[in-house]
Amino acid sequence: MNDLAALQTALFQFRDERNWKQFHTLKNLIASVSIEAAELLELTQWKTDDEMQAAKNDPAYRQALQEECADVLMYLLLVADEAGFDLLEAAAAKLKKNEQKYPVGLAYGSAKKYTKLAED
Amino acid sequence: MNDLAALQTALFQFRDERNWKQFHTLKNLIASVSIEAAELLELTQWKTDDEMQAAKNDPAYRQALQEECADVLMYLLLVADEAGFDLLEAAAAKLKKNEQKYPVGLAYGSAKKYTKLAED
Amino acid sequence: MNDLAALQTALFQFRDERNWKQFHTLKNLIASVSIEAAELLELTQWKTDDEMQAAKNDPAYRQALQEECADVLMYLLLVADEAGFDLLEAAAAKLKKNEQKYPVGLAYGSAKKYTKLAED
Amino acid sequence: MNDLAALQTALFQFRDERNWKQFHTLKNLIASVSIEAAELLELTQWKTDDEMQAAKNDPAYRQALQEECADVLMYLLLVADEAGFDLLEAAAAKLKKNEQKYPVGLAYGSAKKYTKLAED
Repeated sequence: MNDLAALQTALFQFRDERNWKQFHTLKNLIASVSIEAAELLELTQWKTDDEMQAAKNDPAYRQALQEECADVLMYLLLVADEAGFDLLEAAAAKLKKNEQKYPVGLAYGSAKKYTKLAED
Repeated sequence: MNDLAALQTALFQFRDERNWKQFHTLKNLIASVSIEAAELLELTQWKTDDEMQAAKNDPAYRQALQEECADVLMYLLLVADEAGFDLLEAAAAKLKKNEQKYPVGLAYGSAKKYTKLAED
Repeated sequence: MNDLAALQTALFQFRDERNWKQFHTLKNLIASVSIEAAELLELTQWKTDDEMQAAKNDPAYRQALQEECADVLMYLLLVADEAGFDLLEAAAAKLKKNEQKYPVGLAYGSAKKYTKLAED
Repeated sequence: MNDLAALQTALFQFRDERNWKQFHTLKNLIASVSIEAAELLELTQWKTDDEMQAAKNDPAYRQALQEECADVLMYLLLVADEAGFDLLEAAAAKLKKNEQKYPVGLAYGSAKKYTKLAED
């Protein structure tokens, strides 16, 4: 599988073969994004940054990381489909917006939120 | 922008021009996925499924939906980059695994978790 | 156990007998609040409001609801302890603030965020 | 305010004076727990454990921490009320269960999940 469109096609087919669209209200799908994001977060629970570095080279841990990220991505694609927009276009547009919100000159090396950037 | 690879390239450039990789530990990035997922969830707060249907046709609401989904996707890409895997391959592999966990015959029209499917 | 102070005492003893304070950085505890909150959210996944009404009378489901709420509360208490504030006082103060932000006259019967209340 | 019961009474009165119970389905309240938990999580975004230690002594930051914890607690109380159980009793029962799941002898100084404890 070499592109997002192919993944989408396979994902929608997976959903439709199981007749699952009936459960996929926009509200339910969005809740599922948060649920899966938290399963990803759980993989970091009690770990230091150093332990995370070590863990990411552990095959079982990598597998878990990949699967949880995959679940979040798939729900995002289902949300976008249900809401009727293209996820990739949305991300490209948001990245352009972020480039404006975080001008290199102000944001370089700073972890501040854009609302705080101009304060210095 | 017509593919995920182009988005990734633009995103990593955005990060590097601002010298932000120093903040992007795997643990921090994964927390950011959850934070953005919850901002998406907040868009559904107090809304019924019917109100969500109406809202998704409201331009300002659609814009907000798109931006929050975009933020989640961008953090997923940063997580995958930091952990050293390909997000699209991870999703394709997970979808295949889900096809095994949820055989059409058992899962058709059912919202049950795979661990409960065989109980009936 | 008839008060929050008794629960706190038992909880801190539980933690200390296991020598777990070493893992309980403020950042880790706060992440755990989100992780447990999402386990609670998972109990609502794919359920309609009507199905939730029915489920809350199912003993196993009630038990699960209670346990997930309990986990969130216990992490909140640990966060407050680590940060050095009283959770109950914090909540009483925030409720007072909410009373100001949402005056009865404006907020009656409205699900709007306080930032939108005055617009009408 | 010196006990959780008094907070509950004030909270339910706050809700009822604004006629908000109509929005407080169990599903919506539970989603709100996650939304507020993520606002708490956002306070840790990009911060190291050391920066968190410093931040907790900053008055504005402490205030924010307290308010977000307060919001989570208040939604938990509303969830428990809507589902018809006592939050404090639920927590006391769960703590007892955790004492069984994490025997001191096995769990001392270990951050492992109870399902992994016996493996060593």
